[in-house]
Amino acid sequence: MMKAPTAVYKERRQRLCDKLGTGKILFLGNNHSPRNFKSNYYPFRQDSSFLYYFGLDLPNLNAIIDVDNHAAYLFGDNPTIDDIVWIGDQENLESMASKVGVDKVLSSSELDNHLSDGMHYLPPYTYDHTLRLRQYFKQEPAASLELIHAVIEQRSYKSDFELAQLEKAVEYSTVMHTRVMQHCKLGLKESDLVGIANQVAYEHETVLAYQPILTTQGQILHTNEYHHVLEEGDLVLFDGGLEVKSGYCADLTRTFPASGKFTPLQKEVYNTVATALEKAVNLAGPGVAFQELHLASARMLVEGMKAIGWMKGNTEDAVTTGAHTMFFQCGLGHMLGLDVHDMENLGEQYVGYAPPHIKSTEFGLKSLRLAKALEPNNCITIEPGIYVIPQLIDKFRAEGKFMEFINYNKLEANRNFGGIRIEDNFVVTKDGVRNFGPQLPTQAEQIENLVQESLYQV
Amino acid sequence: MMKAPTAVYKERRQRLCDKLGTGKILFLGNNHSPRNFKSNYYPFRQDSSFLYYFGLDLPNLNAIIDVDNHAAYLFGDNPTIDDIVWIGDQENLESMASKVGVDKVLSSSELDNHLSDGMHYLPPYTYDHTLRLRQYFKQEPAASLELIHAVIEQRSYKSDFELAQLEKAVEYSTVMHTRVMQHCKLGLKESDLVGIANQVAYEHETVLAYQPILTTQGQILHTNEYHHVLEEGDLVLFDGGLEVKSGYCADLTRTFPASGKFTPLQKEVYNTVATALEKAVNLAGPGVAFQELHLASARMLVEGMKAIGWMKGNTEDAVTTGAHTMFFQCGLGHMLGLDVHDMENLGEQYVGYAPPHIKSTEFGLKSLRLAKALEPNNCITIEPGIYVIPQLIDKFRAEGKFMEFINYNKLEANRNFGGIRIEDNFVVTKDGVRNFGPQLPTQAEQIENLVQESLYQV
Repeated sequence: MMKAPTAVYKERRQRLCDKLGTGKILFLGNNHSPRNFKSNYYPFRQDSSFLYYFGLDLPNLNAIIDVDNHAAYLFGDNPTIDDIVWIGDQENLESMASKVGVDKVLSSSELDNHLSDGMHYLPPYTYDHTLRLRQYFKQEPAASLELIHAVIEQRSYKSDFELAQLEKAVEYSTVMHTRVMQHCKLGLKESDLVGIANQVAYEHETVLAYQPILTTQGQILHTNEYHHVLEEGDLVLFDGGLEVKSGYCADLTRTFPASGKFTPLQKEVYNTVATALEKAVNLAGPGVAFQELHLASARMLVEGMKAIGWMKGNTEDAVTTGAHTMFFQCGLGHMLGLDVHDMENLGEQYVGYAPPHIKSTEFGLKSLRLAKALEPNNCITIEPGIYVIPQLIDKFRAEGKFMEFINYNKLEANRNFGGIRIEDNFVVTKDGVRNFGPQLPTQAEQIENLVQESLYQV
Repeated sequence: MMKAPTAVYKERRQRLCDKLGTGKILFLGNNHSPRNFKSNYYPFRQDSSFLYYFGLDLPNLNAIIDVDNHAAYLFGDNPTIDDIVWIGDQENLESMASKVGVDKVLSSSELDNHLSDGMHYLPPYTYDHTLRLRQYFKQEPAASLELIHAVIEQRSYKSDFELAQLEKAVEYSTVMHTRVMQHCKLGLKESDLVGIANQVAYEHETVLAYQPILTTQGQILHTNEYHHVLEEGDLVLFDGGLEVKSGYCADLTRTFPASGKFTPLQKEVYNTVATALEKAVNLAGPGVAFQELHLASARMLVEGMKAIGWMKGNTEDAVTTGAHTMFFQCGLGHMLGLDVHDMENLGEQYVGYAPPHIKSTEFGLKSLRLAKALEPNNCITIEPGIYVIPQLIDKFRAEGKFMEFINYNKLEANRNFGGIRIEDNFVVTKDGVRNFGPQLPTQAEQIENLVQESLYQV
């Protein structure tokens, strides 16, 4: 894997020690995750904090940082001849460890002797980690809030090395999105296009950072089904990002007409979303609360939907009341880095929120992963969308909700409109935000042109 | 997903009840498996025994069979409006359950009330199942040997429905292998070809049943790295199979010259492997112990390697001594079905062994997953290979092993030869075995021709 220079890992651990002052920190590496039996496991993914502090991208490793003695220990085992027969030879652990500035390598069996009550560790998100923490400490896992905050404080600000990795992830992902649009053709299945996306991933020796959303049912926020055949009039929403070898990932979305030509209504909705994106990008910068961007985007969406006729009434009031959540049920974006929702496992309330922002429990705002003020070198997604969800229309209407803001009759006629999202990735700079990578087109006409190139011969 | 008719599931559960006679059986469905944070999970795969008895291919389900009362209970929850927003609407559980002949659907929260000491359950292979079993029964999971044997007795014999599914899996996988060979070209990376394989998988709305092996380092039995560039003289070993929607999978391997032309030595080794495959296929049938096929193949491999000059001495003695494990370190094959190593999670010692065969602890034979006598409707892989592993040569030579059977000096000159495997999938018939699907070529010249078609323009 692509690693940062040795000094980077030492410095990261040093800063963490400085922050905590005293104690011991246990970092659990990930193990293989079984699929339908133990030896048939999913593609390995290392834990992101383990990658951040230790840079070693293989299973069966753990590490301890002894803060008081400024010492780092790696626990793992070199391959046996059986391992070499089955999975090949590998560089020995001592050599790998020294490249990330760790001098002490101990066998896995020694981990037990180095565990102690009161050790700091991060919250488990795999069943494996939960099991092991229970076994190690004979109690329910209790993550260290102090460690959580210290890690977030480091990982939230990307170094030049990290920015370059994100740039690359976005660059490759832009190739993937372009290729998918160019290969789109009526009569193909959604899964055919997922196949194209995967091919681009493998060409770049990357993997998809998450199961892509590639669907004619864009109103379903996180669907991973790909069985529909592309028909005249369909919109295709593709939310997909590649993860480069260092673990950094991109998260881009484009929505395009399967036929290469938006209908007038589709174009109107599309342009509304594009305007909301533009608005947020223009407002974004250091000191600006992401929640304000979210609400500003929401207002732009409401303005657009009023012009379309789906909404009515006072824009400001509509957003305050939450009427926009009929169409924009999720948040405007999130942090991006080694995780596509960066550090989500550490707790969104810590990663994305800081006083005066507290996470809402209201439908809509409760899905906003990031609210706090942006700072230089934060990396984020901005991803407004309009999603027409028939079941939600029925529910809100039956409850008599938002009657003064929603034109239910007009909307009813378009209940199967689908969904549109446009999503780009940014780094916060000194005075605004910068889009990563070569810009993937956002304008409706550019998108139509890409699809019309139709390179794919069926 | 593709399901068998309702009666099939009822009958399978009925047979299981008949076999066990009394008691309660708990079937744990699989949950999502987190990748780098909880909501970024791997593609869902249902547990195969759950699929076999309940046919429901979605997460968060569990089931209980009350043997004494011949009743089956499904535990799960219908989606909330939040679920519908995020993952879309789904058929309600009651309707899905009735399609697999289950009348009683209870909410997940009721599972606890239906657990009882002494319930039968299968061995856990995910951390999730281990965690839950510990929590449910307040003790280390202790799988029911009675249940294991009963399940193996059913799943080992494939019905016509199952054979048709396997046929389809092999048919699609044959398309994948053909396409990969046709697109092979010097200068591509291994990962480019993995991309082609994935594209074919998505075109057929299938997934790869396991992380494919696609490598110029075919001597590494289970490598999943794909970074080498294909060069003149390279052999490419591709071990990949598709899993159709019902969960049944194929497991095919071909080894081809990256350039489209085997070297004379490569062709000699290739033909040796092809002959060993042919030998095993001709011998295979009801009543024949798979271990005998394994050893017969091993003898053919030794014969070939004597002709090549890598081995010497008496063939029978070489195999008895285990000298062939220098080149053939693994087993000749395994059961195939809903799992690529079918039922491996239930224990190879039960699935693949029955008196008089007991699993060896010797290098080589200890990796033989299947030894017992074949019976009609067993489905199996046959996959001989020759693997030249430099580290193993060094180890055996240093230990003075197999000196009368291995020509170390001759072999030394070919220590970087690599590896060749040819693998097909079969059902045991009344008087032999039948190859699934349209036959993927095995002859060296046919393989060369496929690669020479080189459809891929770089």
